[in-house]
Amino acid sequence: MKDDPLAMSMLFDFYGEVLTEKQKDFFDLYYNRDLSLGEIAENTGITRQGVRDVIVRATQVLRVMEEKLLLVDRYKTIQNGLLEIHDAAASIEAANNHHGGSASIRGYAQRIQELAKQIAEKT
Amino acid sequence: MKDDPLAMSMLFDFYGEVLTEKQKDFFDLYYNRDLSLGEIAENTGITRQGVRDVIVRATQVLRVMEEKLLLVDRYKTIQNGLLEIHDAAASIEAANNHHGGSASIRGYAQRIQELAKQIAEKT
Repeated sequence: MKDDPLAMSMLFDFYGEVLTEKQKDFFDLYYNRDLSLGEIAENTGITRQGVRDVIVRATQVLRVMEEKLLLVDRYKTIQNGLLEIHDAAASIEAANNHHGGSASIRGYAQRIQELAKQIAEKT
Repeated sequence: MKDDPLAMSMLFDFYGEVLTEKQKDFFDLYYNRDLSLGEIAENTGITRQGVRDVIVRATQVLRVMEEKLLLVDRYKTIQNGLLEIHDAAASIEAANNHHGGSASIRGYAQRIQELAKQIAEKT
């Protein structure tokens, strides 16, 4: 039943807060810490099927959230755009050095690179 | 009972999809189209109190979503950062023109401005 762990981990990062504590715990153990259903069952004292039901339900909740809000999709678009901005600003900085160098252009180009990084972290 | 319409409208834009159809409709009529509770009651054939209950509940759902996901908060941070990137790139373009002008710097600066606008629209 295991879905792609990276995709699941992104869904969890974006929407994990809407899950119940139990859903969060089991999902985290299964997808982020890579425990098996059997191991989670053993550690928590419920059946393997019970663990499985909780995780399947949690996965459904996260997928429905993404269908409605499209945050993961939007995140990827924004990250790609910010990377392109960052690289363009780095190219400006390099080209400016070749052209003798204006201090103000260098300053703005560096500021854009910083901002692109900061926004990428906050997205 | 009316909350700040602009704040409500932003919450609705971000999380409206998680509401039921009825919650969406009433919320939209009340906050975006500025109908009164009485008018909505008249148009839909339910009591004024019934309309009010639906809207209060919808507002709660949207607020809880924001507490959990902080999308509106994040949105504002990202928009401010993108605006600063856009302005810095415009300043580079202007400074580059003063300095005789490198075509590659101009091209990159224009590209950054375009990207900042595109990302702002997608955020």
